[in-house]
Amino acid sequence: MTFDHSGTSGRRRPAGGAGSGAAAAPDAGLLSPVRAGTETEAATGDPAWLQALLDAEAALARAQADIGAVPREAADAIVAAARADRFDLPGLARRARGAGNPVVPLIADLRAAAGPAGRHVHQGATSQDIVDTAAMLVASRARRVILAHLDRALDALARHAERHRGTPMAARTLARQAVPTTFGLKAAGWLLGCLDARERLAALRLPVQLGGAAGTLAAFGEHALDLVAAYAARTGLDEPALPWHTRRTPVAELAGALALTAGALGKIATDVVLLAQSEVDEVAEPAAPGRGGSSAMPHKRNPALATLVRSAALQVPAYAQIVFAAQAAPHERPAGEWHAEWQPVREMLRLTGGAAETAAELLDGLEVAPDRMRANLDGLLKVLAEHGQPTDAGAAPALVDRALARYREHRRNRT
Amino acid sequence: MTFDHSGTSGRRRPAGGAGSGAAAAPDAGLLSPVRAGTETEAATGDPAWLQALLDAEAALARAQADIGAVPREAADAIVAAARADRFDLPGLARRARGAGNPVVPLIADLRAAAGPAGRHVHQGATSQDIVDTAAMLVASRARRVILAHLDRALDALARHAERHRGTPMAARTLARQAVPTTFGLKAAGWLLGCLDARERLAALRLPVQLGGAAGTLAAFGEHALDLVAAYAARTGLDEPALPWHTRRTPVAELAGALALTAGALGKIATDVVLLAQSEVDEVAEPAAPGRGGSSAMPHKRNPALATLVRSAALQVPAYAQIVFAAQAAPHERPAGEWHAEWQPVREMLRLTGGAAETAAELLDGLEVAPDRMRANLDGLLKVLAEHGQPTDAGAAPALVDRALARYREHRRNRT
Amino acid sequence: MTFDHSGTSGRRRPAGGAGSGAAAAPDAGLLSPVRAGTETEAATGDPAWLQALLDAEAALARAQADIGAVPREAADAIVAAARADRFDLPGLARRARGAGNPVVPLIADLRAAAGPAGRHVHQGATSQDIVDTAAMLVASRARRVILAHLDRALDALARHAERHRGTPMAARTLARQAVPTTFGLKAAGWLLGCLDARERLAALRLPVQLGGAAGTLAAFGEHALDLVAAYAARTGLDEPALPWHTRRTPVAELAGALALTAGALGKIATDVVLLAQSEVDEVAEPAAPGRGGSSAMPHKRNPALATLVRSAALQVPAYAQIVFAAQAAPHERPAGEWHAEWQPVREMLRLTGGAAETAAELLDGLEVAPDRMRANLDGLLKVLAEHGQPTDAGAAPALVDRALARYREHRRNRT
Amino acid sequence: MTFDHSGTSGRRRPAGGAGSGAAAAPDAGLLSPVRAGTETEAATGDPAWLQALLDAEAALARAQADIGAVPREAADAIVAAARADRFDLPGLARRARGAGNPVVPLIADLRAAAGPAGRHVHQGATSQDIVDTAAMLVASRARRVILAHLDRALDALARHAERHRGTPMAARTLARQAVPTTFGLKAAGWLLGCLDARERLAALRLPVQLGGAAGTLAAFGEHALDLVAAYAARTGLDEPALPWHTRRTPVAELAGALALTAGALGKIATDVVLLAQSEVDEVAEPAAPGRGGSSAMPHKRNPALATLVRSAALQVPAYAQIVFAAQAAPHERPAGEWHAEWQPVREMLRLTGGAAETAAELLDGLEVAPDRMRANLDGLLKVLAEHGQPTDAGAAPALVDRALARYREHRRNRT
Repeated sequence: MTFDHSGTSGRRRPAGGAGSGAAAAPDAGLLSPVRAGTETEAATGDPAWLQALLDAEAALARAQADIGAVPREAADAIVAAARADRFDLPGLARRARGAGNPVVPLIADLRAAAGPAGRHVHQGATSQDIVDTAAMLVASRARRVILAHLDRALDALARHAERHRGTPMAARTLARQAVPTTFGLKAAGWLLGCLDARERLAALRLPVQLGGAAGTLAAFGEHALDLVAAYAARTGLDEPALPWHTRRTPVAELAGALALTAGALGKIATDVVLLAQSEVDEVAEPAAPGRGGSSAMPHKRNPALATLVRSAALQVPAYAQIVFAAQAAPHERPAGEWHAEWQPVREMLRLTGGAAETAAELLDGLEVAPDRMRANLDGLLKVLAEHGQPTDAGAAPALVDRALARYREHRRNRT
Repeated sequence: MTFDHSGTSGRRRPAGGAGSGAAAAPDAGLLSPVRAGTETEAATGDPAWLQALLDAEAALARAQADIGAVPREAADAIVAAARADRFDLPGLARRARGAGNPVVPLIADLRAAAGPAGRHVHQGATSQDIVDTAAMLVASRARRVILAHLDRALDALARHAERHRGTPMAARTLARQAVPTTFGLKAAGWLLGCLDARERLAALRLPVQLGGAAGTLAAFGEHALDLVAAYAARTGLDEPALPWHTRRTPVAELAGALALTAGALGKIATDVVLLAQSEVDEVAEPAAPGRGGSSAMPHKRNPALATLVRSAALQVPAYAQIVFAAQAAPHERPAGEWHAEWQPVREMLRLTGGAAETAAELLDGLEVAPDRMRANLDGLLKVLAEHGQPTDAGAAPALVDRALARYREHRRNRT
Repeated sequence: MTFDHSGTSGRRRPAGGAGSGAAAAPDAGLLSPVRAGTETEAATGDPAWLQALLDAEAALARAQADIGAVPREAADAIVAAARADRFDLPGLARRARGAGNPVVPLIADLRAAAGPAGRHVHQGATSQDIVDTAAMLVASRARRVILAHLDRALDALARHAERHRGTPMAARTLARQAVPTTFGLKAAGWLLGCLDARERLAALRLPVQLGGAAGTLAAFGEHALDLVAAYAARTGLDEPALPWHTRRTPVAELAGALALTAGALGKIATDVVLLAQSEVDEVAEPAAPGRGGSSAMPHKRNPALATLVRSAALQVPAYAQIVFAAQAAPHERPAGEWHAEWQPVREMLRLTGGAAETAAELLDGLEVAPDRMRANLDGLLKVLAEHGQPTDAGAAPALVDRALARYREHRRNRT
Repeated sequence: MTFDHSGTSGRRRPAGGAGSGAAAAPDAGLLSPVRAGTETEAATGDPAWLQALLDAEAALARAQADIGAVPREAADAIVAAARADRFDLPGLARRARGAGNPVVPLIADLRAAAGPAGRHVHQGATSQDIVDTAAMLVASRARRVILAHLDRALDALARHAERHRGTPMAARTLARQAVPTTFGLKAAGWLLGCLDARERLAALRLPVQLGGAAGTLAAFGEHALDLVAAYAARTGLDEPALPWHTRRTPVAELAGALALTAGALGKIATDVVLLAQSEVDEVAEPAAPGRGGSSAMPHKRNPALATLVRSAALQVPAYAQIVFAAQAAPHERPAGEWHAEWQPVREMLRLTGGAAETAAELLDGLEVAPDRMRANLDGLLKVLAEHGQPTDAGAAPALVDRALARYREHRRNRT
């Protein structure tokens, strides 16, 4: 199972270069606190991805057993062998350079691990079948986590909207106080943004991928279409009409839904940062030991959670750009476009998931200061009165009710 | 506090001024042949946008008449005055610099044009109500054009898929011949990609915008919610649950759908370019006088239509990035994020529309060369036979049937 | 093989056809007030681009006359004919669809306009020679305008930095007041950002493009290299080491420099918006008739200029993405990547130029309120004193001096 | 040194969620084979970043000792304690959520590790001083690696250009054979692209960051400016004119240079993929055991190295977008824009470095097939002869000489 780089990797180690030990430099989220230690991180890290690749191989073996193409015992042996913690992840990553993807070395190792059943591993499949199916499995698992955090955020938002249905504050346009609104209406807008995103994300179809070498299912014999159905059933993913190796709708739609979600959360965080400014001071993040501290200014409390959410929201749209552009992929498998999708898809999932978890924390404990809102508003009310403009918040409470009604209907349908 | 432009910008005048001829440098699509002279261009150019702004004002007056807030005759006068060709478009563009958007100067001119009814123009509304509603009107009108072109492309694709259901050709992965497939299956993949995009685009909700100064509907009085419904009816747009000044779901979803569509078209164009290579030569673009010519090489025919489609597909994802990022918009109206959306949304519409129209032309007349496909495949078949690999296209014809079945169902539901 | 447009695109005619009035939907900047009516707009619009294309053809004829490859009189006749206002711009844009670029139809029209000299038009060149040279001409002309506006902005910034070298205000980090700084230091930071960008932009090499059909100069005979030098001299552009049809360094470097510039301006505008908030109110934009008005709130003055600058800064990085990605262009001319560059390059130039002109206006007249800065700072000073933290602005004045020294050195070298 | 999440992280673990062990999900490059196991990966991973953070703290202590602000022995103790392998990296990553950056918890741990000297850790500095300085250290170290790989690629390219100065092949424009060129000219174009990028990258100024809480150096006393100089000397980084907390020129310039480099490499890889197509077959990647294999097709050899390079080139421009956009950062430290830079900067470094290392391998062993080039060219030569067009490669060899001369001059200056 060792892999000989001698022909090439000797060249990759110039004099003075670090050795193979030094090359083991795994990332633990140091540069991405928004998702460091979050549930979505656990669901999307390399170990999770490796397990999903193995799950895809295992489900394929099971599905082939279901249609009689592989002995049941062989499938069982493959399933038993397909445990990520038994594989050398950094080694697989390096060996992935040979074929351009990690499945080629993984199959070799899985075959060895499965013993005599090994020859049934990956039968008739191509690397992309496994990588794409694994990506959908990871997306599906991460989605579950993201939706749970969104739900917690939605509940908190509904509470804020309801409680502050009529709490007056200044609406601000182009950075200037404009007219009165209510904090409830602001929260209702946040609520609907997250609700739109949640529904979009939940409605996504995440299909299994199975096409064989080039999407014709040629190596699967006459029961190929049955196999696709069985594979979908075994993975719990959707059954696609056709293999989608270079029809990237599922990935592009996922990118769009995550960008929508990150944007909805980013909107909230942006407002929180602005409302938490020293000179505005209308909301405060929930306090916690060690949170919001500054290394230079002990007197200061920063809106750290909103900052983290914004750090994600500012990145995700660019990752979506990569994925949308990768749709224009040559022939039956591109030399690069597909490979360029993997990291952005993962980053979108975990940044969005980290943002959702962080936003849920933020909203759960968000401190709202109606007195300060009122004080900030006073000057504006005088000006409006002088200009003979309305000084009330108009239909704000009624609009809050509308938003809450939609939310409650959503909750009813969800349960 | 007067401001001397003499040194550098004599060509431009501050807000309110009328510019010189030199400043009138309108674009006619010289740098964007993919949409030059297309239907989508006509539907999305500055004149169309100006008309949509006026339509938004006119519909608002009508809706206010419907609920009794404006005299019917005043509404009629406003509608009569709201004709784009009577307004000074370049002047409005320049005067838009004063307020940061074109509605403020437009209202002044429309009021003047409407005579005594002028005082009912824009009653209770804010600029963003009009710009956003106009954007949705333009999107709605452009969508109609785009869908028609997509339908023509879909019909052509279904014909290709059916005719070449069993036409063998080499599938290519990572640029190398892999195994046999059929041209029908390739066309079926293109078909489903466009069909996914079409359904997504058609399902988009395009809502009217009406919130007044900051989304509370305060200036519309007690019948504000009725007015929103009437406004939606008068514009033909959807009625939103809440004003969406800074809940940008509708725009972000539009961006996602257009990026999906441009990608599906870009996939086709990428394959056509590769199949039209001199050394492959399996397809040719439809010939037409003046098409595909080279200024240096009279012997050459270029895949000009596919090139145009690709020029659009390579741009649209970046515009989507801008729009997704603009979701994180401060408070009740941002100082920049909203303004940054306008051009990207227009470009996405017209690049996608131009690409759809161009792709429809391309696919309608695409010449397919089964003999050449067969000749290119011969060497591969020998190699496969030597390796004991399958030499047939597996389930390709059955997969084509699946795709066509889905297409036919779509067509039935569409009519 | 004729092609029937009747179903869908009656408004458009195939290559060579003249379109209807409906297709003439030119843009006048209605959706882009940041550059509407600006000098950069005039320097980058379709008419300017058409003139640059003609200038490129004219300079080529002159250069060929210089080396004796074209009769001097023929070159003179071509130069005389190369006037943009004599050409049908919208027609050229539409006819550009045939070849995928506007040069093919332009040559036909220029040959006709040049009479007997017409046969010497475009001798030995390829379309890309002309389009790329024209792009560099437009970039060079627009750069001159942009640099002039940046210089005005730099002068204003140096004045602010000097005047407010010691004016205390609150520095704000993560939206919260942190410690004292001076407005002069803030202005000095803005100054250096713009200075970095200005120097980068000014140092860009903008080379002529000349390679013939595929970069070998084959059709120019034995004096080909002399011709390239003569062409550079005639256009005033740099002479490249090699043709750069698919070595896109010049365009990518331009994109980087413009993104840097737009970012430096965007930083200023972002700060101005935040400082102009109702609750902060430390700066105000220069007042002018019609500026900063709201269609809904007569009592309100918006930071309209900063908003415009931000609208540009939020778009330009995405256009840079397109241009950087287009470097990976196939072979000797790509089918799409090159074509995708044109609009983004133009947009970057005119958005950045519009932002520079707008920022110069903004900074020239920016009103600074030291009293308000002081008042906002008071509470912080108390807190700092309580915590035993420094309450002065440290080295801020000395840093201002450093920045000004660098600026003065720059100015000396510039003159 | 333990960190209590009880107030908040209990909320972050819904029923059924994974525990803290499961959260340790470090990435080892499984989704990014282009850099898996490369030198740049080792130079940019979380451990390298952690070490750079510690190096920044250590250098600050040393610099403070140099100016007498910290006892020499305390500085020595801090330096001795600042070894990454003694710190709990995943724990730091998680605790970074509290303050929004990893420096706050790092200081706590470093202080503890430094014993009595601990109170001199981070004296007067702010988190951003350390993170930005660390980023520049990582960039500087990674740049050294990248330049070495580029140099190897340049050497290989020069060899190819020289050897194939006159090797005829078809130039291809818009995917069609156009006219003859030489492979040497193609290689010369690749060479100059990489040379431009190398010079740009090498010329970048990478400055130290030191400003204290908000860029005024207030906590450093009267010798603050001396301290900055000493800090630059101790880190080996450039000394900036001013702190650049929110004047992001250095980061934006780095992004531009890396995007230029990735593009130059992506151009080569794109051409290699196209030339390696089955139907063209003019080049082949260097063979090596396990390279280019397919999991489905044992008969196939894929251009795996070029695929990897392209996977990087397709991502980097989007990361540059994020960094360019982050220039518009509020006040003296943004709540998000800065934090959004970290990952994209790292990804750009390691994707570009991985691409450079991979491209060097690819170019070192690239197999070129002049006979096949000649065979592919034959038909074109006949057509050109029929049209009376030149059938030679024009100035291609002379242009190769020019490129090589520039390369040799570069090499002389480099040594």
